[in-house]
Amino acid sequence: MTQKYSRMTEVLIRELKSSIGEKSVSVKDHEIENYSHDESSLIEPCNPDVIVKPLNRNDVAAVLKFAGKHSIAVTPRGAGTGLNGGCVPLYGGIVLSMEKMNRVHEIDTDNFMASVEPGLSLTQLNLDVGQYGLKFPVQIGDMSASIGGAVATNAGGMNAVKYGVTRHHVLGLEAVLSSGEIIQTGGKFVKCSTGYDLTQCIVGSEGTLAVVTGIILKLARILKYKELLFIPFTNLQDAVDAVPEILKLNTIPIGLELIERDIVKLVEKAFGIEVPYKDNEAFLIVITENDSFDDILRFFSQVEDICRRHDAVEFFAPGDESAKKKILEMREKVYPAFQKTGPFAEIDTVVPRSKVAQFIYDVKGIAARMDMSVLASGHAGDGNIHLHPLCVNEPKQEWLKKLPGLMDEIYRLCGSYHGAVSGEHGIGLDKKRFVPMTADRGSLELMKKLKYAFDPDAILNPGKIFDL
Amino acid sequence: MTQKYSRMTEVLIRELKSSIGEKSVSVKDHEIENYSHDESSLIEPCNPDVIVKPLNRNDVAAVLKFAGKHSIAVTPRGAGTGLNGGCVPLYGGIVLSMEKMNRVHEIDTDNFMASVEPGLSLTQLNLDVGQYGLKFPVQIGDMSASIGGAVATNAGGMNAVKYGVTRHHVLGLEAVLSSGEIIQTGGKFVKCSTGYDLTQCIVGSEGTLAVVTGIILKLARILKYKELLFIPFTNLQDAVDAVPEILKLNTIPIGLELIERDIVKLVEKAFGIEVPYKDNEAFLIVITENDSFDDILRFFSQVEDICRRHDAVEFFAPGDESAKKKILEMREKVYPAFQKTGPFAEIDTVVPRSKVAQFIYDVKGIAARMDMSVLASGHAGDGNIHLHPLCVNEPKQEWLKKLPGLMDEIYRLCGSYHGAVSGEHGIGLDKKRFVPMTADRGSLELMKKLKYAFDPDAILNPGKIFDL
Repeated sequence: MTQKYSRMTEVLIRELKSSIGEKSVSVKDHEIENYSHDESSLIEPCNPDVIVKPLNRNDVAAVLKFAGKHSIAVTPRGAGTGLNGGCVPLYGGIVLSMEKMNRVHEIDTDNFMASVEPGLSLTQLNLDVGQYGLKFPVQIGDMSASIGGAVATNAGGMNAVKYGVTRHHVLGLEAVLSSGEIIQTGGKFVKCSTGYDLTQCIVGSEGTLAVVTGIILKLARILKYKELLFIPFTNLQDAVDAVPEILKLNTIPIGLELIERDIVKLVEKAFGIEVPYKDNEAFLIVITENDSFDDILRFFSQVEDICRRHDAVEFFAPGDESAKKKILEMREKVYPAFQKTGPFAEIDTVVPRSKVAQFIYDVKGIAARMDMSVLASGHAGDGNIHLHPLCVNEPKQEWLKKLPGLMDEIYRLCGSYHGAVSGEHGIGLDKKRFVPMTADRGSLELMKKLKYAFDPDAILNPGKIFDL
Repeated sequence: MTQKYSRMTEVLIRELKSSIGEKSVSVKDHEIENYSHDESSLIEPCNPDVIVKPLNRNDVAAVLKFAGKHSIAVTPRGAGTGLNGGCVPLYGGIVLSMEKMNRVHEIDTDNFMASVEPGLSLTQLNLDVGQYGLKFPVQIGDMSASIGGAVATNAGGMNAVKYGVTRHHVLGLEAVLSSGEIIQTGGKFVKCSTGYDLTQCIVGSEGTLAVVTGIILKLARILKYKELLFIPFTNLQDAVDAVPEILKLNTIPIGLELIERDIVKLVEKAFGIEVPYKDNEAFLIVITENDSFDDILRFFSQVEDICRRHDAVEFFAPGDESAKKKILEMREKVYPAFQKTGPFAEIDTVVPRSKVAQFIYDVKGIAARMDMSVLASGHAGDGNIHLHPLCVNEPKQEWLKKLPGLMDEIYRLCGSYHGAVSGEHGIGLDKKRFVPMTADRGSLELMKKLKYAFDPDAILNPGKIFDL
């Protein structure tokens, strides 16, 4: 089916303004431009006809009823920090920016939960709940992202080894269906076997099934100490081989990150962040937290024993806060460093974690055969590997011609590893052609049926995840 | 819509036998009777026309194609240990018993995962993975249940405080759709943002969306020590008030159970299991595990400090294995003790955990006004409370007349606490009329649309969760 979407006319804009108030609707040129793209480097922007900033769920319901009546595409948007064009309004129409719905309704310290609106940034969320010794433990690259965006993409990040991903922290939702009906799913409890889990259907659906207007979050306690080990290895395989053994220890680290030499050097060049031992091929960063410093020391000594057996070169446990910060900053600046360096693409595959090294070697083999360069970093503790094809020593146009072939081969390889296209960024616009390489036909057809069950007129974020 | 289902005729039975083999199809009287019920105490059995025991996914696909063609109801069944009639074949037809599909395909010690078939019992699963120091950490009342049944009901159990529920341990599924198409969802990874989460759609859907034929499970490491504290309180409120404080400690216990005096006495009477301090009103059982015994002692001492402030009467840490076993056995025998005692009903509500005491007091108030008795036990650490209306001192027929009114009031109360009908048992047959008391109309309508998206002819486990 190909859906046809209408564009907003002057008359329709007036109707919309009279329905939800003049102030919530913008057609200003600079806003149209601002809301035409996300942070992805290679996706063409698309202008929306109009931007709506709802103040509450009733505004959202009114917008969706209006859009359904007139067949207008509605693209929900968080903070616009996505990397796959998930909030790019491919068919114009309405961008529904949730930025003004950023309140915290409740922080429940007895149940370790918070009830919040989707426009709240992750940074602000942690400031608010941090006053009560609590945190939202999903730590992603850009914490200016909104919690609504994290829910839409099922954001993962660096702490997934211990804490899992956004999905595991969403206990309930308030959501507006495309009909304008408002539903409540789940609640302030972890256990629930009462019908289908609509909460988990909506999490990760990238705004294509419903517009989330409220989120019940499970929080975690802030522990007293957070420490890290930075461990250089002479080769990637050794680094990755140590990972399953570390994860068999009694203490589960919050993060177990892998980064390769050329990326460390890229970050150094882009931001002047120097880290020690940078001439080694690969590095593990082991991050842990605990109320007891002795427990951390005991854990680190066990990690050292394991890594030593896997020929680690050194164990750097930064003693002071600034050295610690430097390592974490180096890890966090990987994506911005690529942005500063030149044309690059971003791949967010996930494979079984024991296969990470072989997968990366295979990818590099493919790239070498095509005379291209791919750098790797990522979350070794959970198999979510970020691969970055990078344009070096050739004109961008030439590189862009070769890129689709490289991407195809990498995703096909990922399929052969029984992996998936995206571990944490989502599919959005520019990954959808790869989904069939890791998902079977029956699953894809079923997803489309679910889409129609939720949104029969397909007005919500059309053109994302798959083509209908 | 009311679906009409055909019954199996001699001709159809011959067709089915010729399709999947004579040996997999049974119409023997004693089998028909055995497969007509589950463990629920108040649900009328229904005879299936035929029992099919598939050997592999192709058998399942053949059965579903056959059933679709002839409009025969198909009721998937695990070990039959459910408590809400979820596997009772309301419309006769085919019971699809997964008992012969009980193989372990793979135990992956590097990734802490196993790939298994649904007919495997939880006991056998733990024996198999236990050889590698691993466990499936969901500990439910009856471990003879099958893993497929646990997936169907999203079983929870005693360890949910630390480990979550079945849903959190299912990373991927092989499932047969009602069309006969076989799909694979998820994979051997925790992070995935590649389209809608079909895995989590199917988990907890009680066999109404698809027939699960393979499960990729996330496992946990077996820790060296498992210890418990048995703590009597003079009143329920004190016991429950200690719970949020215990959960703020650095160590997360695996379980935090609540039980009241009259249930302890019931178990004692039914099975002769005597526990100490049994004249107190309420008891907490705090269960923890660790590789370090010192850590356990430290944790228990913190728990004692908290409970002392909440007027706990005593702290009983059973030193020897037999005393420990007695406490756990007492907890595990609650349901069997009710079964031995006389007519009773079973309620599996979940409410925010900080509200548990008030909820139980309110329930008891309702029961007292109706001159009825309700006893409470359950998972204080996660708000999942089992309430047992019990027939005492009156004829069963009289009690049965009053029971529906009591159930209505309890579930309505649960709704006012923003709770849900079932925390871990599922809805099945006998809880479906209560679902609208805790779920809104829009959510219920959406669930029915999902049902049709998966199973357009509604042949899979009809009459369960809701009426279409």
